[in-house]
Amino acid sequence: MEIDRSDAVTREKFGVFDRVRTLPGKAKDKVVKFGKRVEKLGKDDPRRVIHSLKVGLALSLVSLIYYWRPLYDGFGISGIWAVLTVVVVFEFRVGATLGKGLNRGLATLLAGALGVGALHLSNLFENEGKPIVLAILVFLLAATATFTRFFPTIKARYDYGVMVFILTFSMISVSGYRVEKLLEMAHQRLSTILIGGATCIFVSIFVCPVWAGQDLHNLIASNIDKLANYLEGFGSEYFQVSKDGDCIEASENDKSFRKGYKTVLNTKSTEESLANFAKWEPGHGRFLFRHPWKQYLNIGALVRQCAYHIEALNSHFTNDIETSAEFMRVIQESCAQMSSESGKALKSLATSVRAMKHDPESAKEHVEKSKTAVKDLKTALKAAALEDSDLLSIMSAATVASILVEIVDCVENISKSVHELSQMARFKKVEDIASPETKQQMLLHRGSVKPVLDCDQTPDRDHVIITIRDMFNMDDSLENLRPQDSKKPREEE
Amino acid sequence: MEIDRSDAVTREKFGVFDRVRTLPGKAKDKVVKFGKRVEKLGKDDPRRVIHSLKVGLALSLVSLIYYWRPLYDGFGISGIWAVLTVVVVFEFRVGATLGKGLNRGLATLLAGALGVGALHLSNLFENEGKPIVLAILVFLLAATATFTRFFPTIKARYDYGVMVFILTFSMISVSGYRVEKLLEMAHQRLSTILIGGATCIFVSIFVCPVWAGQDLHNLIASNIDKLANYLEGFGSEYFQVSKDGDCIEASENDKSFRKGYKTVLNTKSTEESLANFAKWEPGHGRFLFRHPWKQYLNIGALVRQCAYHIEALNSHFTNDIETSAEFMRVIQESCAQMSSESGKALKSLATSVRAMKHDPESAKEHVEKSKTAVKDLKTALKAAALEDSDLLSIMSAATVASILVEIVDCVENISKSVHELSQMARFKKVEDIASPETKQQMLLHRGSVKPVLDCDQTPDRDHVIITIRDMFNMDDSLENLRPQDSKKPREEE
Repeated sequence: MEIDRSDAVTREKFGVFDRVRTLPGKAKDKVVKFGKRVEKLGKDDPRRVIHSLKVGLALSLVSLIYYWRPLYDGFGISGIWAVLTVVVVFEFRVGATLGKGLNRGLATLLAGALGVGALHLSNLFENEGKPIVLAILVFLLAATATFTRFFPTIKARYDYGVMVFILTFSMISVSGYRVEKLLEMAHQRLSTILIGGATCIFVSIFVCPVWAGQDLHNLIASNIDKLANYLEGFGSEYFQVSKDGDCIEASENDKSFRKGYKTVLNTKSTEESLANFAKWEPGHGRFLFRHPWKQYLNIGALVRQCAYHIEALNSHFTNDIETSAEFMRVIQESCAQMSSESGKALKSLATSVRAMKHDPESAKEHVEKSKTAVKDLKTALKAAALEDSDLLSIMSAATVASILVEIVDCVENISKSVHELSQMARFKKVEDIASPETKQQMLLHRGSVKPVLDCDQTPDRDHVIITIRDMFNMDDSLENLRPQDSKKPREEE
Repeated sequence: MEIDRSDAVTREKFGVFDRVRTLPGKAKDKVVKFGKRVEKLGKDDPRRVIHSLKVGLALSLVSLIYYWRPLYDGFGISGIWAVLTVVVVFEFRVGATLGKGLNRGLATLLAGALGVGALHLSNLFENEGKPIVLAILVFLLAATATFTRFFPTIKARYDYGVMVFILTFSMISVSGYRVEKLLEMAHQRLSTILIGGATCIFVSIFVCPVWAGQDLHNLIASNIDKLANYLEGFGSEYFQVSKDGDCIEASENDKSFRKGYKTVLNTKSTEESLANFAKWEPGHGRFLFRHPWKQYLNIGALVRQCAYHIEALNSHFTNDIETSAEFMRVIQESCAQMSSESGKALKSLATSVRAMKHDPESAKEHVEKSKTAVKDLKTALKAAALEDSDLLSIMSAATVASILVEIVDCVENISKSVHELSQMARFKKVEDIASPETKQQMLLHRGSVKPVLDCDQTPDRDHVIITIRDMFNMDDSLENLRPQDSKKPREEE
């Protein structure tokens, strides 16, 4: 017993020593790990680093009001409001900064006027009654304004403005009770806020701007792309897998295309906030002021609808019941066609959105082909009879076929919606350029999908893609085929 | 020509007159419409009205610092920071208010200390160098802190704190360059912010509190409920519809249960922000501090997964291809069973979450029954052969059956996850009470679903539910059966 205990004590002692000894190593590990996370965050989207520097720049600019004598003599201690405004107004995207800046400026102006009015009103009462009148006014106005923040339309665009309104009104009417030179204070507050807001907007727009509109545009295009990748991969892989069961293991390794669409399921709130910011933005790049941002939300909803169906489809990859080979032969060709043509249609739509080119024929052609495949499937099913198989063995494949039919519908709707967008936003028309591009794309797809089909060797899709990229010297519009695109829009808001 | 023109002028004049004449009426209409919207907003969630009054109350309380002489003598003009703090910190939910308040308080303390340190550092330099050193420090700190806001974990919980940190540091180090009594200013700012924050937290917690945790809890329970309603309605309606086609029209009128689940698809962001707020909240009601809020997010994800499958299922309600009656007979019973038992399992889970009662047997029983139905379906499918029907006519029904099988899996996962929650959060155990309640529920379900099945008369489910409610004198846990429950959690954040 004695020995046991001393043994335990020794071990404990060594344990503590060990821990102390390994402490610097662990701390170093943690620092290295943290450093890597920081590096990744910056590399994933270098605009983040630039944004941080921009905030520093804007703050340094407005602090000149304090440091530079002539300016300080003009604004005095109120200059601090400019610093304050920069910190609270400067956001990652131009639209968000503009929205907050305008909200803050207008709300301050309005609330300032009302606050001064309230003070004059309270002056009509005696000394005892003054604070009571002011308190009642503040209470009423704050309660009413707070309630308006629950209106969805106000919440979406003017929430910050209403807050600043309550803030300024309370500040002026409360402090006006003691402070003498009220008008001067109101005037200084307004002008410094305007200076701060203007600095933010200036830096935000003219130093490496991050446009919410551009981000929304890219997000929608990349979401369509993700679905396209899934559908292009699905058809060939699923129908191959079912033919010779032992291929499942090999293809499990290459699930990248199967996961991409998952993020599409939850982008609704990101899309909505981007659209709200985009509405504040002036024309930029290829987007005019009053670009039909709302239509992007419509497309986004249809894309999400399609993603829900893909989610249902995806659960049939890992089905453990053996599928009837007889039934597979009936549906295989048309289903693979539906899947790949829908994928190509989406790919073409994504390309046309990204390049802002009005190219209805290319997507339409694929949609038509996928619809023909649906008809083929129906004809084949009507004619076929099961001889050697029971019903259980066809259930999973029948479900896949049904869901693919739904997806063809969804893709047609997305196509129509993108077509509407291209008319609303007056996309450039493409006539002659279309055919070689489509050809290139089709060649490319065949190249990128085939190796997965080939079960005997480990699939190595990236490699094949890169080879073909070099061969064809591809243009920007095909950029999206890279499996990891670091320029894809991030979702910070 | 002359006559025509004068005619046009006359018409235009009358047009203008007409417009002016109808102006008051239109304005009145608009006011009435607006009034109704306000009323609806308040009635939908009366807590909104109470929140607005609470903000007014908190503001009036802190403005006492200004109005009441002894307090004003203590704090002076800095008292305005208390007003400011109340306006920016007071949020709808306790957790959000607490999170913002604590963030603001701690960030002010930390940044204040650092700011004073920066000033001492700048004092080591000559007069010319001072502002340069300060500007560099502000730039570095603002840029670094802004970059940390991109870390997802910091963004979720400390975003506001980092902003206040930049704000306070810039304010102190910039204005410290000119203002003499800096330490006094820092001290006053800190103490008034603490007063403002404390007032917010006090009013938020002790006057009709709105707990984010409670809202998250209710949201999850009501989401499970929505899926349950769908599944309970689906089985009987779908299989009835397919038997005699003319019933589709009648049942189209009663789509309420078909739409409820749609909102579940997009609650991810709401759930996440509620969980973030809930983590700030102290124990309240039936929730202890450190209640396993994260588990709610896990359940939420599984519920959403199930909702995706339901979305796929839902697209088969309006299928225009005639379904083979022969095949229907094979799958009908087991599918109806799967659907209704899954629904009942979910209903029982929702009840047990809502009442925080650990009642695994009730849900388990239904899950087992639904799994038995899956086995029955498989057996039936294995044994059956198609004689009079082609494959096309079975596709839609086969898909429905497959998706239902997936849903049974999902429901089992949800059940396990709720079971984990009940153990983590130590739900009360229910042994003897369970059986009569379950009985009541089952009776009720039969009552509420039957009338929809009956195609000859217009369905009037609400009426039937109310009758049964009266009959059984139901307890709270069954409250969720009401089709429109005005107390359901709203999603404002």
